[in-house]
Amino acid sequence: MSYRATLDFLLYDWLAADTLVARERFADHSRETFDSVLDTCERLARDKFAPFNRRADTEEPWFDGQKVHLPESSHAAAAAYAETGMLAAAQDYEVGGMQLPCVVQMAANSFFSKAGIGVGGAAMLTSGNANLLMVHGTRLQQEVFARNEFAGRFSGTMCLSEPQAGSSLSDITTRATPDGTDFERDPLGPRYRLRGNKMWISNGEHELTENIVHLVLAKIPGPDGRLIPGTRGISLFIVPKWLVDTQGQLTGERNDVALAGLNHKLGYRGIPNTLLNFGEGRFPVRPESADGSTGAGAIGYLVGRPHEGLACMFHMMNEARIAVGLGATMLGYAGYEASLDYAKARPQGRPVGPGGKDPTAPQVPIIRHADVKRMLLAQKAYCEGALALELYCARLVDELRTGPAEGAADVALLLDVLTPVAKSWPSEWCLEANSLAIQVHGGYGYTRDFPVEQYWRDNRLNMIHEGTHGIQALDLLGRKVVMQGGRGLELVVARMRESADRARAVPALERHAAALDDAVRQLVAATRAAWATGVPDEALANATPYLQAFGHVAIAWMWLNVAIRSAALLDGATDADADARRGRLAACAYFFAYELPRIGAWLGVVASRDATCRTMQESWF
Amino acid sequence: MSYRATLDFLLYDWLAADTLVARERFADHSRETFDSVLDTCERLARDKFAPFNRRADTEEPWFDGQKVHLPESSHAAAAAYAETGMLAAAQDYEVGGMQLPCVVQMAANSFFSKAGIGVGGAAMLTSGNANLLMVHGTRLQQEVFARNEFAGRFSGTMCLSEPQAGSSLSDITTRATPDGTDFERDPLGPRYRLRGNKMWISNGEHELTENIVHLVLAKIPGPDGRLIPGTRGISLFIVPKWLVDTQGQLTGERNDVALAGLNHKLGYRGIPNTLLNFGEGRFPVRPESADGSTGAGAIGYLVGRPHEGLACMFHMMNEARIAVGLGATMLGYAGYEASLDYAKARPQGRPVGPGGKDPTAPQVPIIRHADVKRMLLAQKAYCEGALALELYCARLVDELRTGPAEGAADVALLLDVLTPVAKSWPSEWCLEANSLAIQVHGGYGYTRDFPVEQYWRDNRLNMIHEGTHGIQALDLLGRKVVMQGGRGLELVVARMRESADRARAVPALERHAAALDDAVRQLVAATRAAWATGVPDEALANATPYLQAFGHVAIAWMWLNVAIRSAALLDGATDADADARRGRLAACAYFFAYELPRIGAWLGVVASRDATCRTMQESWF
Repeated sequence: MSYRATLDFLLYDWLAADTLVARERFADHSRETFDSVLDTCERLARDKFAPFNRRADTEEPWFDGQKVHLPESSHAAAAAYAETGMLAAAQDYEVGGMQLPCVVQMAANSFFSKAGIGVGGAAMLTSGNANLLMVHGTRLQQEVFARNEFAGRFSGTMCLSEPQAGSSLSDITTRATPDGTDFERDPLGPRYRLRGNKMWISNGEHELTENIVHLVLAKIPGPDGRLIPGTRGISLFIVPKWLVDTQGQLTGERNDVALAGLNHKLGYRGIPNTLLNFGEGRFPVRPESADGSTGAGAIGYLVGRPHEGLACMFHMMNEARIAVGLGATMLGYAGYEASLDYAKARPQGRPVGPGGKDPTAPQVPIIRHADVKRMLLAQKAYCEGALALELYCARLVDELRTGPAEGAADVALLLDVLTPVAKSWPSEWCLEANSLAIQVHGGYGYTRDFPVEQYWRDNRLNMIHEGTHGIQALDLLGRKVVMQGGRGLELVVARMRESADRARAVPALERHAAALDDAVRQLVAATRAAWATGVPDEALANATPYLQAFGHVAIAWMWLNVAIRSAALLDGATDADADARRGRLAACAYFFAYELPRIGAWLGVVASRDATCRTMQESWF
Repeated sequence: MSYRATLDFLLYDWLAADTLVARERFADHSRETFDSVLDTCERLARDKFAPFNRRADTEEPWFDGQKVHLPESSHAAAAAYAETGMLAAAQDYEVGGMQLPCVVQMAANSFFSKAGIGVGGAAMLTSGNANLLMVHGTRLQQEVFARNEFAGRFSGTMCLSEPQAGSSLSDITTRATPDGTDFERDPLGPRYRLRGNKMWISNGEHELTENIVHLVLAKIPGPDGRLIPGTRGISLFIVPKWLVDTQGQLTGERNDVALAGLNHKLGYRGIPNTLLNFGEGRFPVRPESADGSTGAGAIGYLVGRPHEGLACMFHMMNEARIAVGLGATMLGYAGYEASLDYAKARPQGRPVGPGGKDPTAPQVPIIRHADVKRMLLAQKAYCEGALALELYCARLVDELRTGPAEGAADVALLLDVLTPVAKSWPSEWCLEANSLAIQVHGGYGYTRDFPVEQYWRDNRLNMIHEGTHGIQALDLLGRKVVMQGGRGLELVVARMRESADRARAVPALERHAAALDDAVRQLVAATRAAWATGVPDEALANATPYLQAFGHVAIAWMWLNVAIRSAALLDGATDADADARRGRLAACAYFFAYELPRIGAWLGVVASRDATCRTMQESWF
């Protein structure tokens, strides 16, 4: 099946995205308008992104001391993407948006991730940045910054980490001090001077757009001049690379934000990753300021209220986490497609017959070997299962935004619980899919003449950025499944059981229904056992195996839903569709036979609160 | 613990390698002579290999049309290695060897793999090539070729694969035809002309040595001029890059072997990987030959008997497979060391106390977090467990060569069964260790400023070369555990049960003993169930999960042995030694709690002869 056919099935046959047009916000839309967006993105990804994916890797961004260079093809791709209007896909018409459902937006963006994750800039960062301002910014901040980001004139970043503070955001030391006595009267927002270093900033410096809008976490010192410990002291600022007036026009003043260096990465190289120095005086700006400053200090405008910056940033981070999961999924899918093509074309070996092999028979394409089919089925099960989860989460976002108000709290909670899984599971398993894609290619897969080694390198980032695997695990077991007395877990479990109930009515799926029920039972029991002593240390020592198990159960649940729908549609299908449905049923069977049983090993240590890791001593290593 | 301390423990405390000096072949040796070899290799690896590992990656081999260039540091490292005499470590004194036990040789070589797997040429290939000739070559072939390889004047390759024949060796099409009517009277061996292309040839072209000795598989056409199908038609030839006289001196004649191109790899870049054209007339040689030829055709000398080349080559391949396993292990170990150092030095976050985290407390080194300890323990368990298995296999080689004759057949069989596991398990799990090493480093691990990303890239090759994972799996389940009526499996199982029996007497290990017993029972049952119908297709469809499970059981067995010894030594130890022993007991506990339970999922599909993969149709993907 083509990817598009798979996407259409998930989007329409399974998630019934076309029924969203009954809602007021999407009333101008139809299946046709959705399809037209998908068509455009599919075509653009094929023409402007895919051909340049390798180039984005080999022509790594470089800095000549003045500016960062990217291949011309990346400039062209970024411009073409901006022209589609996809940067504002989900926004209101009145700000230039398309009022697309989130699930359609994600589906449309998936083509670009698959074609070239690092080509054409990190559009997701620009959208996410602007979307955040539409929620937390002032009207003028929205007009000056967000609208220009949606239009593709400006791009956006998120500046959280510092060299000494990655996972531990509470330890950031970037300071923001009021800029002059009139600092509160700037129309763009309370004006501060920022000083500090930000690390791992994707798209932190480039020439793809006229301006770069940095969203920066920094601490406003207390009355004693000291930084407030913990996350309570964190505030959020807009720090543009070039200062702008209230019309959004560049004033020509370079803000004091300097590129300290580019990080040289293993993969994901099309997107420059930077260390930025804020306010070190490299670009003195407005030295005539009332405080008599030398012009050192990057000018930034407060977003939202002081000390509430992290909550605002999480608006962007949750969106980013689902986007990371989708990116990981599509990298996996790209490898699956490449290895499927290779396996159909490459002759090698012969099937084993009852009498062994007949060396005089011609070689067969490797797709006929059971072990190669296993590697392809695993990739299909990982990538399509992950895609189902990402789209399911996107569909929940639509439900939250446009669904009935009375269910909204539950939907929000469900989404909260699923977010760390949606981020982490594809990061781990679609990476494994990429490794299998290499393996299917044999020695050829290990060369740079085939695309699969790059997918594998690119994908390795996803378990690290936007909160590492370990951080997602603590979020899931330490917060999400216990908050509101465990209501989030209850909601997920109820939906899983409901799926199992429906599957029980389908003869081909009865066994899977029972397996999912049993898995859910194990998961719930392990959650309880982990917290049985109430000691966080003991519960959380095995948070990562818990996250892994939770993810596998969630994907089994997705596959069961997909299988229910596929089985229902199998009757009376045309041949090609029937094949696709049988393929989905086989992938579901693969997942239940080969994958779901893995949870036993993971949940075993969770349920017993195994102390091996927790009690290991440094000197014993 | 330092790696050396770990190695010393495994070598002496556990495998009692020093007791081998009681055997005649090793009578001149002592623990002191063994240690002195280890000291030399450790020092050389530190000084001549480790500092240049990154350079071997970034200054990839390149071809100027005449010769292949490698960094000067790789030349220096190759020369320094040759000077140690390690190329002939296991050979007889009379051919310039050191008569070292295999287990000591492997231990000594491990330092080089850890310091720079691609620095200084693939010495293992040269040794393996020469060792093969010492078994299958004529006396003159040994003197002319093997001895110069042992001395480091010549290097060696193994030329098996062709562009159209990788895993399927029976499909090679390189032809060897008699070179003139006097072809049988050449003192160097029956002389043939070879014509064909060989792919994936490591070290196939370079200037590290005076000459390159290619060992080439080719087919001698039958009387009808056609190639014999299958592996029966395969013969083995020595094809030197430069022709030599019977004294081993270069005659100045370039043989007709031409570099067609270098493969550009994901990793393992220090070793040039080549496509070689044999006999295409690029370097016409001896055109005055009696058959009136134009000089096209590479001159090669038959090794052993016609049509028995594959059996000869397997002599080299089995050795190579254990060496690949050791290389994978040491790449894993290098990452473990790097991430352990990083985890001790990097402050980030705080422990979770009963009342949550105290943001005013200073950050702690990340090694104090349970999840980081988990990632380090996993690496330790994978890499030290794999190292134990490799050394155990090497010890079996010594047993086979110098042990009592009456047990030799069993030892050989045991080694046969363990070889695919020794090759594949570290290739999979020490690669996973490298991924965890990246994860411990966070974002820094994804940059090329830290060594761990290179280890991960380098290690990815090991599941592919020297027989892919899938090929090893077929070898294990399709041949090794069933040959001689399953006697090989019986032997392994008996040794595993014996270890469990001994562990049962150690209170701290009782639970592990029971777990190993149970795992062995599952493994045996699954083996039987896989073959219950006697249909190879059904049994072998899940050969890879079987290989994975077998490997995990084997490593659990290794850990139990290591733990028995560690527990016994724990009394009365000095502090540092006691810490190391506690660490090993913890790693053993980790393996039994977190890893061994994985076998359930793998063996489940083996035992049920799950048909999902086997029956999947191409059109369903």
